Amino acid sequence: MPFAFDLAILNCGELLTLAGERRGPRRRSGLIELGLIQNGAIGISRGKIAWVGAQREYRRQGRARREIDAGGKVVLPGFVDPHTHAVFAGSREGEWAEKLRGVPYLEILQRGGGILSTVEATRDASLKSLTETAEHFLGQMLACGTTTVEIKSGYGLDLKNEVKILKVIEQLKKRVPIDPVPTFLGAHTIPKEYSDRPEAYVDQVIEMLPAVRGRARFCDVFCEEGAFNADQTRRILEAAKSEGFAIKLHAGEFSDQEGVRLAAEFGAVSVDHLDHIRPEEMPLLAQSGAVGVLLPGVSHFLMSKHLPPARALIEAGVPIALATDFNPGSSPTLSMQEIIHLAVRDFKLSAAEAISAATINAAHAVGMGEVVGSLEVGKQADILILDLERYEQLPYFFGVNHLEKVLKKGKVVYSSC
Amino acid sequence: MPFAFDLAILNCGELLTLAGERRGPRRRSGLIELGLIQNGAIGISRGKIAWVGAQREYRRQGRARREIDAGGKVVLPGFVDPHTHAVFAGSREGEWAEKLRGVPYLEILQRGGGILSTVEATRDASLKSLTETAEHFLGQMLACGTTTVEIKSGYGLDLKNEVKILKVIEQLKKRVPIDPVPTFLGAHTIPKEYSDRPEAYVDQVIEMLPAVRGRARFCDVFCEEGAFNADQTRRILEAAKSEGFAIKLHAGEFSDQEGVRLAAEFGAVSVDHLDHIRPEEMPLLAQSGAVGVLLPGVSHFLMSKHLPPARALIEAGVPIALATDFNPGSSPTLSMQEIIHLAVRDFKLSAAEAISAATINAAHAVGMGEVVGSLEVGKQADILILDLERYEQLPYFFGVNHLEKVLKKGKVVYSSC
Ligand SMILES: [Zn+2]
Ligand SMILES: [Zn+2]
Repeated sequence: MPFAFDLAILNCGELLTLAGERRGPRRRSGLIELGLIQNGAIGISRGKIAWVGAQREYRRQGRARREIDAGGKVVLPGFVDPHTHAVFAGSREGEWAEKLRGVPYLEILQRGGGILSTVEATRDASLKSLTETAEHFLGQMLACGTTTVEIKSGYGLDLKNEVKILKVIEQLKKRVPIDPVPTFLGAHTIPKEYSDRPEAYVDQVIEMLPAVRGRARFCDVFCEEGAFNADQTRRILEAAKSEGFAIKLHAGEFSDQEGVRLAAEFGAVSVDHLDHIRPEEMPLLAQSGAVGVLLPGVSHFLMSKHLPPARALIEAGVPIALATDFNPGSSPTLSMQEIIHLAVRDFKLSAAEAISAATINAAHAVGMGEVVGSLEVGKQADILILDLERYEQLPYFFGVNHLEKVLKKGKVVYSSC
Repeated sequence: MPFAFDLAILNCGELLTLAGERRGPRRRSGLIELGLIQNGAIGISRGKIAWVGAQREYRRQGRARREIDAGGKVVLPGFVDPHTHAVFAGSREGEWAEKLRGVPYLEILQRGGGILSTVEATRDASLKSLTETAEHFLGQMLACGTTTVEIKSGYGLDLKNEVKILKVIEQLKKRVPIDPVPTFLGAHTIPKEYSDRPEAYVDQVIEMLPAVRGRARFCDVFCEEGAFNADQTRRILEAAKSEGFAIKLHAGEFSDQEGVRLAAEFGAVSVDHLDHIRPEEMPLLAQSGAVGVLLPGVSHFLMSKHLPPARALIEAGVPIALATDFNPGSSPTLSMQEIIHLAVRDFKLSAAEAISAATINAAHAVGMGEVVGSLEVGKQADILILDLERYEQLPYFFGVNHLEKVLKKGKVVYSSC
């Protein structure tokens, strides 16, 4: 008798399928939206989910070439990290120590610190060394359960260096069993050579677009006071749209700059940060179809007094995703497990909401909602086995890596020692 | 030619020896107190440190039977976690979720939640199941770099069950390559069968002392409003002293109950929590010789508005240690790396202070300062290799496990995959 599956995962104490009644991100997330199967099993063939159901029905499906016993533990889709800046050179721990001692950020900037120091280091770094550093980071992400990661350029800020970063992201695909989704963020900040001519840099970004088309799936703009204002953002988004890019937006991190309005107008796939979104903008965001991406690592690391109105966004029907925003200046964490803990503690998401936000909704936030983010027949077999009895323990037992196994496209790519 | 060492660790980019000019915990900690050797090496024989020095001087010492290349990374002593309640049954993630939704703690207690639910579950659990659960936790601790851990009883609250917990701690010694230091905390809380007769429970605790002597090194009391007041604490400490126990004290977590005065009077090895210590008590604590143990996991998990005056304690000359306080109600983390991150972020310790507090000072806080906590000739070869370039990155790159290798008594007991 031929094998029914290449691989099966049996004895999943809590199997969170995240299967939904309809396509698209979840606007609510409770027990039902988690698609929880008690004592479940998964059949995998050719790297894809071929069957999901109750353990007691598994035997009727036929045998699998290989079986993994999940030992009654928690099984769920691989995390999707929908917002990172994971390709950079240098780290900025000294700057954080200064901030904690009370040194004003302006003084740090004047000494040559801040984002422009990362731009300088990244411009100076070779393709090879950037690739090695990023490979190391992606290896750590994988070991923490991230199987799909969006990575933005944006520390190059000129054509040569932005292309270099996008090439690194392409290289990573071959080196780490993780799917990187590349985003062009030439509009991350104004580089110092354009500090007195911001409009000329906006022109530059627009000129880069045709050259990076094909290397990046999304175009993103940091719409913020001190970065790109609404008019500049609009100019870039118009050009990006006509070049065929899908749109993402950094909006409302430190101030409200009409980012939500622009996101709705340009049909953005996601709007990220949202710390300063106004209540009257929430229905607009909910109707726009964009996913709201929240970044609790930033609030935690920068010790923000002002947090995004996460519960109000959920009440307004905005689908919420979570991301690390991994970067050396405002969020040096690459663990989605830590992010889930912080989202529950600081943003008052329930464990179920945080898990939806880190899987199916995050997949939709990077345009991958039809491919990953839930355990449904036909989707990639990106699967985590957590060394926990109940999924509610994930945010609770904080500060440790709960992964027992990570599967990417049906292959075990990480096992705890 | 015979081998000079059983094992050597070479090419330690930053070797933090924590070697001090004098015995005892560090009252200050900067670069000097870290005993940092750039490009250092360690020779190990019979499980102990036999030589520490610069890499370039290593060859003159003779060869080692086996060599580990630390690859230019950060090497430091194994963490000592000087305050945990790691032997318990059940977890309380539901209670945390309720708290986050705003349910008052009193209501949770009335429904049978809180510490007494852990007491009930722990009383019901067998020696075997408690040992298996705790073994799992200690395995995770070891993978996070803890090589010595203090564990308190205190979820039994009667002789039979307190002895059961102390027996579990004894079992752990054989099962996990980690040194548990047992503490008797019969005076953790008033059990429900004594709720209207607290003095009678104090008598009970005093009666238990001779029976647990030999099983516990320290006697600890939770000196706190709603637990044991100053008079009750004094009665227990007097009895413990005369039974030959060394003393530890929980003091000032939620209120000030003269715990510091009692600690000084009874020569306590450590006073733990200290959130509510008054400025005028700090010189007394500094003179007493006790180590002040801070628990940033508790402040973080309970989202305390009131934090311990860590910087003022350091200024006053109190030697500071850090601990997880691992327990299911107020600090479900067992990672000293997470604790170091939180101590730097929330308590404004420098990276150097936090590392001293998690190694040499923590060793003194459990009476093990002559045996572990620093890399000095004659001490146990409990050594961590961190996958970091600089020690300041340890609190900065948060939420991930930076361990590459853990050595306990000169043997590799954990390697990252
Ligand atoms: Zn960002
Ligand atoms: Zn405690």
